[in-house]
Amino acid sequence: MSTTSVGRGGHGLAALMELERVGRDRFRSGTVVHPARPNRPLRVFGGQVAGQALVAAGRTVPDDRAVHSLHAHFLRAGEQAEPIDYAVEALRDGGSYSTRRVVAEQRGEAIFTLTASFARAEEGFRHQVPRSAGVDPEDLPPAMEVVAAAGEPNVSWFTALQSMWPLEMRFDGDLPRIASVRGERGEPRQRFWLRSLEPLGDDPLVHVGAVTYASDVFLLSVALPPHGYYVGGPGLAFASLDHAVWFHRPFRADEWFHYDQESTWAGNGRALCRGLVFDRAGELVASVMQEALIRRTGDG
Amino acid sequence: MSTTSVGRGGHGLAALMELERVGRDRFRSGTVVHPARPNRPLRVFGGQVAGQALVAAGRTVPDDRAVHSLHAHFLRAGEQAEPIDYAVEALRDGGSYSTRRVVAEQRGEAIFTLTASFARAEEGFRHQVPRSAGVDPEDLPPAMEVVAAAGEPNVSWFTALQSMWPLEMRFDGDLPRIASVRGERGEPRQRFWLRSLEPLGDDPLVHVGAVTYASDVFLLSVALPPHGYYVGGPGLAFASLDHAVWFHRPFRADEWFHYDQESTWAGNGRALCRGLVFDRAGELVASVMQEALIRRTGDG
Repeated sequence: MSTTSVGRGGHGLAALMELERVGRDRFRSGTVVHPARPNRPLRVFGGQVAGQALVAAGRTVPDDRAVHSLHAHFLRAGEQAEPIDYAVEALRDGGSYSTRRVVAEQRGEAIFTLTASFARAEEGFRHQVPRSAGVDPEDLPPAMEVVAAAGEPNVSWFTALQSMWPLEMRFDGDLPRIASVRGERGEPRQRFWLRSLEPLGDDPLVHVGAVTYASDVFLLSVALPPHGYYVGGPGLAFASLDHAVWFHRPFRADEWFHYDQESTWAGNGRALCRGLVFDRAGELVASVMQEALIRRTGDG
Repeated sequence: MSTTSVGRGGHGLAALMELERVGRDRFRSGTVVHPARPNRPLRVFGGQVAGQALVAAGRTVPDDRAVHSLHAHFLRAGEQAEPIDYAVEALRDGGSYSTRRVVAEQRGEAIFTLTASFARAEEGFRHQVPRSAGVDPEDLPPAMEVVAAAGEPNVSWFTALQSMWPLEMRFDGDLPRIASVRGERGEPRQRFWLRSLEPLGDDPLVHVGAVTYASDVFLLSVALPPHGYYVGGPGLAFASLDHAVWFHRPFRADEWFHYDQESTWAGNGRALCRGLVFDRAGELVASVMQEALIRRTGDG
């Protein structure tokens, strides 16, 4: 499969979520090159593997069943320069629920595993936690302007991220990372708006794959504000360990959605982070949990 | 393996967490008979399968690594009258982390699957959400007294549960189910104290297995107070779909722990429920997420 160039100026989330079907239950991703660093081997972004694995699982499920949950474990770092193979196993097909397991492999070694459950739409009891009050995305400056205006010495961290993530972003409230760079400490909480840089078409599986990708954006960093460290700063090693998403209703990842992130616990070199994804109307569309490794290293 | 009689007057959590090793990576549970209903075939309690699967996984991991997370899917109802086979697969053994997958089978069919991650203890950043103020367990009446005093027509639901669950319980605040039976509606939130009815010895794996068992107690029922339904009442079908636990620090399941449950969302015949488990000192010892099927049926 071809190499995909992502981010601003490259292809976007829809291309990332396209997989080649190489067998009945086997799929393969393209490779990814980032325009900003074409020759540098890079770890695959966790959200990409999770989103692609979910799309692979969904391609083996009848169209009348939509994903309602995924649970994933990151096993080994993936390489962006190589394709990723996704092997899907049908764990169960019941009257209204289907369960799939996916193992993602590179060079014959498992780098990631995911179990996802799909169900037919039905009616039922409804309730949800309310969306925290927030500013509309149109009334917020683009994230890059905020970062540039903060006069941070190494604004390049954000440029690099934005060249990787095919997502538009607006920060709702102070960006904790900027405060951390200034030496301030804060609560383990951050909120922002996100949407795909490009329209994503009408395949619901591409939208859930895209929001799975987006659900990994900045999530582990929300654990750091109380401790004076930041992702990309000195003295910190970090990696996602697991990732779970519950999908509550259909929605479009190419329209603004609000991501409210909080870390409820840290200890033992790990942190547990929670995310709530709301659409413009304030409906809870997805809930996210992630445990991440956050380890002080010797050089900090 | 022998049949285990559980609950008040029978054996307890320690016996339930004992598995026979029938191969290098294969384990088998005993069968369970409840004194109150010895001849009735019963579904296995989800917490039992989850706890046993975790113990099976843990038996294949070096002693210096403790579980920090599990993610599980319930695939088919299990039968208490038959042993459950647990097949463990080593997904990864790294420098400080080990990952295991477990498939639980009855009659050659997968009923449950779990992925668990284990890690060596280390130091690191620490924070946590505070425990909500609550009454000490010694100042609360036994749960059975509360249920009996409520004069509920069918107090037997709780007697049946207590004959199944080898756990002592104290409700911290009103029991939402009792209010629901009275026809009142309330918030999707409930809190109670729990501990094993019997001492559990010093094997840490038995304690995490026991708290995994306990983490399934009443959890899906917390989604119902806003809707006027209750577990065991008319017009409701229910089942756990998935279950995740993050273990934050070692603790004893035979000492009182506080379980704070909340449902953050319901829709599409499902509900998402969250649990926070605190020890006596207010330390967060585990975080729990579960999605459950809660479906109105025709007879309600």
